[in-house]
Amino acid sequence: MKAAIIGAGALGLYYGALLQKSGVDTHFLLRRDYDAIKTGGLKVYSIHGDFYLPQVNAWQTPAEIGKVDLIIIGLKTFANDNYQQLVAPLLKDSSVILTLQNGLGNEETLAELFGGERVIGGVAFLCSNRGKPGTVHHLGAGRIILGEFSGKSLERVAQIAEMFCTAGVDCKTTDDLKRARWEKLVWNIPFNGLAALLLQSVDRLLAVKETRKLVRELMLEVIQAANQQGLCSKIPVKFAENMLEFTDTMGAYRPSMQIDREEGRELEIGSIFRIPLAFAAEKAIAMPRVEMLATLLEQSA
Amino acid sequence: MKAAIIGAGALGLYYGALLQKSGVDTHFLLRRDYDAIKTGGLKVYSIHGDFYLPQVNAWQTPAEIGKVDLIIIGLKTFANDNYQQLVAPLLKDSSVILTLQNGLGNEETLAELFGGERVIGGVAFLCSNRGKPGTVHHLGAGRIILGEFSGKSLERVAQIAEMFCTAGVDCKTTDDLKRARWEKLVWNIPFNGLAALLLQSVDRLLAVKETRKLVRELMLEVIQAANQQGLCSKIPVKFAENMLEFTDTMGAYRPSMQIDREEGRELEIGSIFRIPLAFAAEKAIAMPRVEMLATLLEQSA
Repeated sequence: MKAAIIGAGALGLYYGALLQKSGVDTHFLLRRDYDAIKTGGLKVYSIHGDFYLPQVNAWQTPAEIGKVDLIIIGLKTFANDNYQQLVAPLLKDSSVILTLQNGLGNEETLAELFGGERVIGGVAFLCSNRGKPGTVHHLGAGRIILGEFSGKSLERVAQIAEMFCTAGVDCKTTDDLKRARWEKLVWNIPFNGLAALLLQSVDRLLAVKETRKLVRELMLEVIQAANQQGLCSKIPVKFAENMLEFTDTMGAYRPSMQIDREEGRELEIGSIFRIPLAFAAEKAIAMPRVEMLATLLEQSA
Repeated sequence: MKAAIIGAGALGLYYGALLQKSGVDTHFLLRRDYDAIKTGGLKVYSIHGDFYLPQVNAWQTPAEIGKVDLIIIGLKTFANDNYQQLVAPLLKDSSVILTLQNGLGNEETLAELFGGERVIGGVAFLCSNRGKPGTVHHLGAGRIILGEFSGKSLERVAQIAEMFCTAGVDCKTTDDLKRARWEKLVWNIPFNGLAALLLQSVDRLLAVKETRKLVRELMLEVIQAANQQGLCSKIPVKFAENMLEFTDTMGAYRPSMQIDREEGRELEIGSIFRIPLAFAAEKAIAMPRVEMLATLLEQSA
């Protein structure tokens, strides 16, 4: 198995390092970290134990990598305009494309460009940050839920899940990728959005009666929209309460969008807000609070 | 006519100075400006012409002022807890109380404390700022719309309106004070709220498609709630479009709540947001975007 990691940031570097360590022939397309990793290797600081890869296949263009069996995409979604130039040179007939990106619309765009039968989606629950060039910090979680975009047999995703499991990643499969994506949005939209807008960690959002109420209302809007998207089974309303209680255990957690805004980076408002809003609008579902939050984030970014 | 100005900030100082200049026996209850005005008088810088009052009745307690015919209240609404101690010493049987404060709930609270038959409301459209102690800057507008709280005959408000007109204030009366208050909220809620939250002047809010849409949606929520409050005549939906077009002519105007937030002052979220939300809720009307804006402002204040 030859794999390419496209978008080797906090997510791509972490999963790619684990895959290489487990024996997968892994190739990293790098920009910022190229020099550091090419000459000094990749260091992973992880809650599951640090490790060091002295020798890494580091490249600056996809043409240098050549054809691969599996393309793992970890790009920030606002860079999806680069799919064509980054992915096309890696493709042979049997290549599979796995996007581990945030939000909605990534599989659809990849399918349009390269054919839906190639596309697998993965919903990643990972807390990791880039460190100085050549390092990545794994701070928590890491689970991936994999599903076919075109909803075909699960054999292929089961094989990829096994590859991740062998590499030490908690990886499951689902026959309803769309539901997994929307379920993650039930958390991401309120917590990433409000934390980034107000620059408050999740515990502060939950400690105040009015913001806790707003979090719940945002969740319910997302659940209502999700349940009009033809999921195999509907997301129950009590899922919102479960997510609230789960988040109560997280302490002063700062969602990634908050960190991105604090550090002046571009926010993934398209895939996490605007595309879900467009999918909801196609089904004549309004998400007034979600839309307002998107607009306010765009104006605050 | 002996009048007391309670809450002599940018609004109270400006209208009080005009009344004194026109011959009304005007008394100012002062805090920050007491020393400056007591010794040096009050200077008004106005687009209608500057003027100077060398001698001003300046006081530090309402007991020193004694009984008056007319009490004009210009307090920030978050100071309404002080009504009892500030107003009671000024009252005789025939005293009239006029609140020129922002938002809703002021007349109701005054009526509860001192009797509804005393209470007159005034909706002020004034752009003024305090300068250094002893000065006030009148930057634009100044119209007042007066109405009885208890909706009785308009004779009394007509007299007070005449007093303001004689002083050079554009002052009209209305037989539907409630409608005038809600109409002002149609502007105040979106523009004060969003400008304060995003720290953007009104022209920037209107120039971006998404924020312009949000302004309109907030206006429509307020109009819908207003029209369940038993107004004499309903506010038409096109009032929102009129307000948008009117605001298009205002240029880079910074609403007062934006200036308050920029200068670190407390915001009038209660009277402009929470009390209107409570009045709407009493009629089972939800204002989801207005409520969200209130919550976000409270967390950003």
